[in-house]
Amino acid sequence: MSIDAAINALVPLLGDRLSVSKSDLDAHGQSETHFDAIPPDAAAYPRSASEVSAIVKICANHRCPVIGYGAGTSLEGHTLAVQGGVTVDFRNMADVVQINNEDMTVRVRPGITREDLNTQLRATGLFFPVDPGANASIGGMASTRASGTTAVRYGTMRDNVLALEVVMADGRIVRTGTGARKSSAGYDLTALMVGAEGTLGLITELTLKLQGQPEGVAAATCTFPTIDAAVEAVTDTIAMGIPMARIEFLDAASVAAVNAYSKADFPQTPHLMVEFHGSATGVEEQAARFGDIASDHGGAAFEWATLPEDRNRLWHMRHHAYWAILASRNGATAIVTDVCVPISTLAQAVRETQDDIERSGLSAPILGHVGDGNFHAILLIDPQSDAEKKTAQGLSARMAERSLALGGTITGEHGVGMGKLDYMTAEHGVGWDVMTQIKRALDPDNIMNPGKVVRLNG
Amino acid sequence: MSIDAAINALVPLLGDRLSVSKSDLDAHGQSETHFDAIPPDAAAYPRSASEVSAIVKICANHRCPVIGYGAGTSLEGHTLAVQGGVTVDFRNMADVVQINNEDMTVRVRPGITREDLNTQLRATGLFFPVDPGANASIGGMASTRASGTTAVRYGTMRDNVLALEVVMADGRIVRTGTGARKSSAGYDLTALMVGAEGTLGLITELTLKLQGQPEGVAAATCTFPTIDAAVEAVTDTIAMGIPMARIEFLDAASVAAVNAYSKADFPQTPHLMVEFHGSATGVEEQAARFGDIASDHGGAAFEWATLPEDRNRLWHMRHHAYWAILASRNGATAIVTDVCVPISTLAQAVRETQDDIERSGLSAPILGHVGDGNFHAILLIDPQSDAEKKTAQGLSARMAERSLALGGTITGEHGVGMGKLDYMTAEHGVGWDVMTQIKRALDPDNIMNPGKVVRLNG
Repeated sequence: MSIDAAINALVPLLGDRLSVSKSDLDAHGQSETHFDAIPPDAAAYPRSASEVSAIVKICANHRCPVIGYGAGTSLEGHTLAVQGGVTVDFRNMADVVQINNEDMTVRVRPGITREDLNTQLRATGLFFPVDPGANASIGGMASTRASGTTAVRYGTMRDNVLALEVVMADGRIVRTGTGARKSSAGYDLTALMVGAEGTLGLITELTLKLQGQPEGVAAATCTFPTIDAAVEAVTDTIAMGIPMARIEFLDAASVAAVNAYSKADFPQTPHLMVEFHGSATGVEEQAARFGDIASDHGGAAFEWATLPEDRNRLWHMRHHAYWAILASRNGATAIVTDVCVPISTLAQAVRETQDDIERSGLSAPILGHVGDGNFHAILLIDPQSDAEKKTAQGLSARMAERSLALGGTITGEHGVGMGKLDYMTAEHGVGWDVMTQIKRALDPDNIMNPGKVVRLNG
Repeated sequence: MSIDAAINALVPLLGDRLSVSKSDLDAHGQSETHFDAIPPDAAAYPRSASEVSAIVKICANHRCPVIGYGAGTSLEGHTLAVQGGVTVDFRNMADVVQINNEDMTVRVRPGITREDLNTQLRATGLFFPVDPGANASIGGMASTRASGTTAVRYGTMRDNVLALEVVMADGRIVRTGTGARKSSAGYDLTALMVGAEGTLGLITELTLKLQGQPEGVAAATCTFPTIDAAVEAVTDTIAMGIPMARIEFLDAASVAAVNAYSKADFPQTPHLMVEFHGSATGVEEQAARFGDIASDHGGAAFEWATLPEDRNRLWHMRHHAYWAILASRNGATAIVTDVCVPISTLAQAVRETQDDIERSGLSAPILGHVGDGNFHAILLIDPQSDAEKKTAQGLSARMAERSLALGGTITGEHGVGMGKLDYMTAEHGVGWDVMTQIKRALDPDNIMNPGKVVRLNG
């Protein structure tokens, strides 16, 4: 078999950094959500881009699939070895290569997690702002074009990756981008690789934009009588040009789950959690103006967290909301939805989704990054119940369709993986064919994470 | 001949909106800078995307080159018909399709200029921030990944185009992106088309992000004793996280040219021109902090322009600096360079460039968007003098090489066109091959603006 031949050829290259132990393969065959486990045939632990290149060349010779692996926190089955093959685990390529203080950039290797990166940046006064909640690897975040709570202010991985080193499907090592902040020198290969989910190449180094630690930070929670009122407060705040660093929405069901899990006592109604970054006086001004707007829409029960430990507790709760929601139903697994709509249609999208959930009989709290129009319903199901799974899949499909009908996208930040393939034609039409043409041009044998983003025969 | 056959086939489609008159062809064969005129064989004036699609299909059948044309303000010969063919002029597709106030987006057709767009937006309280100086068309700005004076705050076209409609090389009409602010749904075709200079398709519609008109605006000029001092003031301001909307550098020679052209009397030393956007109090605070930083580096002769008419006069002078510099030498033509380096190397890059210019004996004022590390030397030459042209080309080549050696790019915002092809291998290495693979996949017959960005045989 070609996969076996590839593995045999990899042994002399990697020695004990190539594993076929059942526990290793099982660990790489898991996913965070509802997908069945699909382990690879081997796991490789390269130490350098040239080793990654050698691995890919060997796999290319044998037409053996190659799947990149960071922290395994993705939600659409991105790392599952649906056609078998070799998982390339970047745990030995997880360091900061160089911090450029004056340029406010950092070069890192893909396995480093965002929390590790920010720990290592602490003394510089700089930080990397993209924050998907999970302690994902930076390579994985780039590959899924991740974002999270701070995208409304600092953008997504699309906006924060300046340059990449990528091993292509034939083993060539390509450097995209430069150390400059911008360039017009040809096709934007950096942007093409960000969000490609390892289907066009494996990222082996990233140059990231950093931000200065803000002088002033203010965070708050407040309640709203209805979802519409909360969303209107968000859209008004955006329209006023008030630069929010975070603006997160939780519906009443999410708040209940967070209360139970984190021993908190937020009133059980829709909430916004906001944060402002800036100069000390700037933050004060922004916070006051937001308070006025929120009050106009029935916002109440403001709780300002000015001490760092209070803010950390707040965002810790927000980041663990997924686990809180999962814990709210014993033994449940989750289908995590991820639509993103134009802000003008956000209230309608959330409302119709809630109505649909109510009709379904499932429990499915909603939360999201409403400043971007991006929200998630966490569809809780009994993993043994085919009926519930079917109901949840129906809900998920209708959310995607609703998002498209409102001018939105089927995935704001989680990516396509296996879970969103069925909606790609509906979102992109002929554009999906163009993506497939690019895939065929750059990976004609379809060895790079096959079965994700595009569908090729064979 | 295949081009003649294509033109014959276009007549029934377009009637008198297909022109082969010498004046029309000559007008489309000009460029703003030093390139020789190369007119197309016909100029087409389509009214709709479906007409553009029909034009491209006919041209594809006859393997006839197709060149997009907006306002003709590009600087690297992007619109020159180096292999003949049909220029598609978007003057009849130059309107606002829809303004979405709540989403702060606008859909436009590619022929609209940035000034026209902002005039039409005026009543909404919104504006489109990307400002390359020239009154370029939005389609052209997207195609060259243009930026300009405001990129330091609002980003480049890469950051401000949310979605596109594109006619591909076989006439298929593709929609990239959605109305959502972000998406992880597959390869970023929007980013691939932005900066592709019409070599992968013709943009027939764009969805753009808009910004709220800032409540407060403050602009100022100030002098510095040396280039290094000015650049250090810029890097310190950035490091402090002070959000500048514009921060422009002019060397003493540029100031002299502006003084002569605009009847101004700026002191003849290096200058920064800055602008701050925000709330009234926020702008005041930013301006004060910038003033302190600038003074620390010898900044002096501050002139604040608080009235709109004074600010407009200031930026009008900056935007016309190219013409001022051109007028500073009778009968001269210009080679406009466009490098962008990491901020940490900017002072060195400018200094070495000035030394090189001095040694060359040419007049070549320097100015640029220093907040991004992007600067231009305007190399003034006698169009009749081959010796001067050769000297200028040597200077230009050394600027590109110097930029690459410092970790920068050969073009920050002007694009590749014909002028930067020779440096693409030096900047991208194998990456240029990847670009070529993409081009071959999407335009196998090389009919879309051939001879630009990539080099294909035939």
